[in-house]
Amino acid sequence: MKKLINKPEDVVLEELKGIELAHPDLVKVHYAPDFITRADAPVKGKVGVISGGGSGHEPMHGGFVGMGMLDAACPGAVFSSPTPDQMLEATKAVDGGAGVLHIVKNYTGDVMNFKMAEDLAKDEGIDVEAVVVDDDVAVKDSTWTAGRRGVGLTVLMEKIVGAAAEEGRSLKEIADLARKVNGQGRSMGMALTSCIVPAAGKPTFDLPEDEMEVGVGIHGEPGRARMKVKTADEITEMLMKPVIEDIPFKSGDKVLLFVNSMGGTPLIELYVIYQKAVEIAEKAGLKVVRNLIGPYITSLEMAGASITVLKMDDDLLKLWDAPVKTAGMRWGI
Amino acid sequence: MKKLINKPEDVVLEELKGIELAHPDLVKVHYAPDFITRADAPVKGKVGVISGGGSGHEPMHGGFVGMGMLDAACPGAVFSSPTPDQMLEATKAVDGGAGVLHIVKNYTGDVMNFKMAEDLAKDEGIDVEAVVVDDDVAVKDSTWTAGRRGVGLTVLMEKIVGAAAEEGRSLKEIADLARKVNGQGRSMGMALTSCIVPAAGKPTFDLPEDEMEVGVGIHGEPGRARMKVKTADEITEMLMKPVIEDIPFKSGDKVLLFVNSMGGTPLIELYVIYQKAVEIAEKAGLKVVRNLIGPYITSLEMAGASITVLKMDDDLLKLWDAPVKTAGMRWGI
Repeated sequence: MKKLINKPEDVVLEELKGIELAHPDLVKVHYAPDFITRADAPVKGKVGVISGGGSGHEPMHGGFVGMGMLDAACPGAVFSSPTPDQMLEATKAVDGGAGVLHIVKNYTGDVMNFKMAEDLAKDEGIDVEAVVVDDDVAVKDSTWTAGRRGVGLTVLMEKIVGAAAEEGRSLKEIADLARKVNGQGRSMGMALTSCIVPAAGKPTFDLPEDEMEVGVGIHGEPGRARMKVKTADEITEMLMKPVIEDIPFKSGDKVLLFVNSMGGTPLIELYVIYQKAVEIAEKAGLKVVRNLIGPYITSLEMAGASITVLKMDDDLLKLWDAPVKTAGMRWGI
Repeated sequence: MKKLINKPEDVVLEELKGIELAHPDLVKVHYAPDFITRADAPVKGKVGVISGGGSGHEPMHGGFVGMGMLDAACPGAVFSSPTPDQMLEATKAVDGGAGVLHIVKNYTGDVMNFKMAEDLAKDEGIDVEAVVVDDDVAVKDSTWTAGRRGVGLTVLMEKIVGAAAEEGRSLKEIADLARKVNGQGRSMGMALTSCIVPAAGKPTFDLPEDEMEVGVGIHGEPGRARMKVKTADEITEMLMKPVIEDIPFKSGDKVLLFVNSMGGTPLIELYVIYQKAVEIAEKAGLKVVRNLIGPYITSLEMAGASITVLKMDDDLLKLWDAPVKTAGMRWGI
C-alpha cells in the first residue's frame, strides 16, 4: 500500500485538521464527536441540512458544507458509518429553529445510525426529517445495502436541497423536494482498479490487469458484471443505458448529466466519457441542460467513473444555479 | 494499460469535444489547429493571456480559460508541446488590441514553439510578451528542460495575471507581474506511482511497490532521489524544506500554500499533507494567508503530490481574490 498518510488510524483526524486550517471562512470543525458545520451555524430560521457517511469519498460530504449546500457533515472512519452521537450533535449544532433534514445514503449502517440520531434529536425537541438516497441502478441489494445504494445523486441532492433551504423553504417542502430529486435521478458506476482502505492496507477487491467491474459500488462492492476492459464509448453506453432506461424519461426531457471520477481517473478521461454520454442522451431524446464533471463522490484512489442523470424542471434548474460557497463546489458568490 | 479512452490518438480530440459540449458558456473550442478561447474572445482593449502545453495535466490549461484567468489555451498531444500554429492562431484570436502575454512553462519544446509563435505574431503586428515559468526546485536540468521545470506555480500565475488583465493593466505591467510571481514562488513534487501515456501504453517509469520518487516532474521525469516510501509528515517535510529554503523568505512573510494532487492521490491525503505543511510553514515564520488544495496540475493518473509556496503582497492578494469563472477554478461570480 502506497499512500500519503501517517498512521492509518489518524487519517480522518488529520484530514479534519487540514480542513479546519484551510477553510476557516467556510466551516468550523468540531471534534469528539467529529463533525463539520458551516462557519455561521446555526442559521436562524433556516432549515439545517445534514449529511454524513464514511470518509474516503471526498469532497463529499465535508467539502460540501457551506452557504447554499450543507449545514453539517458527519465523517465516519474510512468507508464506515458515522455514529449516532456525531449526527445528533451535528443536528443540534445546525438547528436554527426550523428543523433539520438528514440526507442519508442507503447503506444499512448509515440508515440505522441516522435513524437513531433522528429519534434522539426529536426527543430533544428538534424537528427532523430524513430522506434516503438510493439512486444506483447497478444492483438491487449489495454488500452493505438492502435495496439500491446511494451514490452520485447525493451530490446533486445536497446542492439542490441546500439552495432550497437557503431560500427559506420549510422542512416539509425541503424533504419533499429531496424525495422528488431521488425519484427522478439515477446513477451507475464502474471501476478499472480497486481502492485500498488505509486500515486494511490491501486492495478491497482483486481486478486482473485487463478487466473491469461494471456497476461497482463506491466502497468497491461488486457490481453487475466483471468483464474485459472495453473502450470508453462502450463503457459509457453500458452505464448510460441502464440509467436512462430505469426511469421512463420522455423525449424532450431536460436533464443534468454528471460524470464523476471515482478518484484515480483523470479529468481528461471524464471529458471523453462526457461527449459520448451527451451523444447517447440526445439519441434518447434527452436535452442536457446542465452538467457536472469531476471527482465529487470518490472511492479513495479507485480508477473508474460513474454517470448520474437527473431529470430537471424549472424549480430544480433555479436551485441548481443558485449561489453556493463550499470548498468542493462554488459558484455565484 | 487500463484507461477510459477509445483510441490513444483520439483522446485529446475527444476531450476537446467534451469541453466544447460541457462549457459553451465559458469557452469556444477551435479545431485544426486546436485551441480553446474564452467564449467572448477577443475582449476589446484587454491584454490577452495565453498558455499551453502538452495535454494530460488537466484541468491545466484548458480548464483555466474564462473570465479572470486565461483567454486561450493550446493543448498539445499528451505530454507533447503544442505547435507554433496553434499558439499563433490562439494569439490572433484573443488579441483585443492591447497585446498578448504568453505564459510558457520551461520545457524546451514549449519555449521553442512559443518563441516561434511570438515572432510570427509580431510579424502580423501583434504586441506579444512571453514569460517563462521555472519554479521547480527539485533539479537544475531535467529530461525535457534546460534549467528548472515549470510546474505548480503556473496555475497561480495564470490566476493572478488573468485578474490583472481583467483590471485593464497594460501588457508591460502584466509581463512584469508574471515575472514577479515567478520570482517569488517555488514548487516541488513527488510520486508514488508512474503515469501512463496513452500512446505509450505502459508506465513512463518503474517504481517498486515500496518506493517513491522525490522531486518528480509532471511528465514523470526523474527527481532528486528514489527512496523507500515515508510517512506523509516526512514527505511533506522533504517537499517544504527545499521550497522554503530556495528563496530567502523572511519571518512574517505572507504566503499562499498550494497542495496539488498529481492525479491519482485523493483529496483526503492532500488535507493530511496540508495540515503538516502549514505547521512547517509556521515554524519557519511564514503566515499562510491563502491556499489551494486539489488536483489542478496533474500528470494523468500519477499518484503523488506537489507543494507550491508563493510569497504574497497586497497586490497579489487582491488579484488572487478577484472573481474568476472557468471550468477548473471559480469564485466571486
